[in-house]
Amino acid sequence: MRDAYVVGRGIIPFGELYDQSFDQMLEAAYLDLLEDVDEGIDPTKDIDAAWYGTIDIADEGSSGASLAHATGLFEKPITRVENACATGSDAFRNASLAVRAGEADVALVVGAEKMLDDTGGLIQSAALEQLWRGRGVTMPAFFGMRATRHMETYDTERRQIAEVSVKNHENGTKYPYAHQQFECSVEDVENSPTVSYPLNLYDCCPVTDGACAVLIASEDRAYDFTDDPVRHVGWGLSADSYQRGSDLALTNFPATRQASSQAYERAGIGPADVDVAEVHDCFSITELITYEDLGFCGDGEGGQFIDEGHPHLDGDQPVNPSGGLLSKGHPIGATGVAQVAEIYEQLRGEAGDVQVDDPEIGLQHNIGIGRNATGAVSCVNLFERV
Amino acid sequence: MRDAYVVGRGIIPFGELYDQSFDQMLEAAYLDLLEDVDEGIDPTKDIDAAWYGTIDIADEGSSGASLAHATGLFEKPITRVENACATGSDAFRNASLAVRAGEADVALVVGAEKMLDDTGGLIQSAALEQLWRGRGVTMPAFFGMRATRHMETYDTERRQIAEVSVKNHENGTKYPYAHQQFECSVEDVENSPTVSYPLNLYDCCPVTDGACAVLIASEDRAYDFTDDPVRHVGWGLSADSYQRGSDLALTNFPATRQASSQAYERAGIGPADVDVAEVHDCFSITELITYEDLGFCGDGEGGQFIDEGHPHLDGDQPVNPSGGLLSKGHPIGATGVAQVAEIYEQLRGEAGDVQVDDPEIGLQHNIGIGRNATGAVSCVNLFERV
Repeated sequence: MRDAYVVGRGIIPFGELYDQSFDQMLEAAYLDLLEDVDEGIDPTKDIDAAWYGTIDIADEGSSGASLAHATGLFEKPITRVENACATGSDAFRNASLAVRAGEADVALVVGAEKMLDDTGGLIQSAALEQLWRGRGVTMPAFFGMRATRHMETYDTERRQIAEVSVKNHENGTKYPYAHQQFECSVEDVENSPTVSYPLNLYDCCPVTDGACAVLIASEDRAYDFTDDPVRHVGWGLSADSYQRGSDLALTNFPATRQASSQAYERAGIGPADVDVAEVHDCFSITELITYEDLGFCGDGEGGQFIDEGHPHLDGDQPVNPSGGLLSKGHPIGATGVAQVAEIYEQLRGEAGDVQVDDPEIGLQHNIGIGRNATGAVSCVNLFERV
Repeated sequence: MRDAYVVGRGIIPFGELYDQSFDQMLEAAYLDLLEDVDEGIDPTKDIDAAWYGTIDIADEGSSGASLAHATGLFEKPITRVENACATGSDAFRNASLAVRAGEADVALVVGAEKMLDDTGGLIQSAALEQLWRGRGVTMPAFFGMRATRHMETYDTERRQIAEVSVKNHENGTKYPYAHQQFECSVEDVENSPTVSYPLNLYDCCPVTDGACAVLIASEDRAYDFTDDPVRHVGWGLSADSYQRGSDLALTNFPATRQASSQAYERAGIGPADVDVAEVHDCFSITELITYEDLGFCGDGEGGQFIDEGHPHLDGDQPVNPSGGLLSKGHPIGATGVAQVAEIYEQLRGEAGDVQVDDPEIGLQHNIGIGRNATGAVSCVNLFERV
């Protein structure tokens, strides 16, 4: 099977984008991508197909026709993918598979969300409607429970969880597209208002609008667009349920373990080979658990992993150099695509003030909680510098 | 690139399924599929990945985790696709591409919709929010305008449009999964209550719940499941906009012309080679226009095409032997999957009372109007008896 490569990326600054329509956000990310392609691109001629990720929280872009309208890419196949918070990652995965299948030599991926226009109240009501919402388990409560269980089971310290927010907010101040750009201390995190014990305001990602695009090309076409493409070498997607025995521990996300296993196996590498990662830190505790789920450290060692500095910008496995969801924000459809875009920039050595030292392998990770399901999906993609 | 084959199908009787939850519908279609596979299947072992089509109108199944929960297929990649009324077809297309790409040797496709639980009022408010909803253009009005334009431009008779409903309702009485099983005459159609001139009640598909599943296998695995697989030989998807000059005629759907051209070209065949078709007759006029868009007849010749008997069950190009959306119903995520399922049965000679005479090539067609977009998507798949 032929390989697929990332050959360009476009992004808009994430934030509270009341001054832009959904269409305008899609268009702006797309136009930034066209500008970004090293050797230029004739989009109508070069782009064969597109995959479009959004949960359409603002009810403005339900089908592939929405992306066609915003970009002017008419008469082409455009699929919309939705997969909870892993929507963007899975749109990317499907596009890459289609390039491998020969459906497209060049495929566009765009993800976008207008979270501030959540008129249906999805965020407030999200999480596990059938089982737990009636018991008050909103998203922060759901992750808060995992934090208390992790602290109880592994003697993880509250301070260690806060260190994730401190690290990511520091990184975010150096990343030009991040929404919440401020530094904070462990004390700031611990003193910020409680959202759902033990998680405080600075343990939670903000509510953010954003859009991002990446371009994928087959091995035959990749070098038409850049001398420095980034190879997509591994991917995994897993759907799971919180009602299964495998999740009883509450200290990890089985879906991430499954998805990352698939990805490592496909790429023929292991966790220790990963030089830089963009992972799903919707809450501080999520990133700490994810260190363990991805195999960067052993079970229960997430707190120690960050104490030892491994995931810091100057560590040996930098995690979320972009500031992660905690600083950058989490516009759902855009989140995974923006993570891929950042890994692309990192592996090309073009990540500016958040560039990590000479990375060869990059990992991107999303986890999603179905807003009306009893389970999670997780998507992991691996990339290699060529 | 290796080929992909359909090797099984599962379906539940479409109707007003107030007595079944969304999960139960998914599960029932899936269990019917497991029963249907000729040589049997060990789903946990055999199924590598799944694609899941729904617009989630009832807000009960937003992510791949919903399908995992309903089927017990955990720890596997499950993507949810949404693409307006072409959702089911495009879920199938993405699954087939993934089989070609080597992502899966065996892929499950499930489509479902609980249209009667449309608590958000999507159906009432659908169609072209940004442009036309404020002018009263709901779905029936949108298709009604195309009917009057077709009548004006081509001297198409009202009677000829009604003949589509007469044919499909007659077929539907013989198809065991159809929702609205009754025969009607041209007079009945013309005398049924006006919905949006010139379309009357019997020109419109009913509001229907339903679920359907199909199984896809690679050429290496297909014969493990059946001696009579059906080869997926062509596919096309196109996204378009109603604000383009190409749609000014209003007498055709450019997206269908583009998608079918892609499909015919991939399969190396033409419209005259199609022996049986399941097409998107959301309204009677839609099928008549689709004859022309698919190239079964020339522009403006749709009325003559049905007058000459070509699309009837005993004609030379039977269209909608299952009764189509007009009789069977249109549970959006399930619709395209059920069309694929019917073509599978037809090409295997197992379509019972609606079996057409010895078909070798079958076509499946969905067109979708974004509920909040200014355009359409169309998906076409072609199948060949092996």
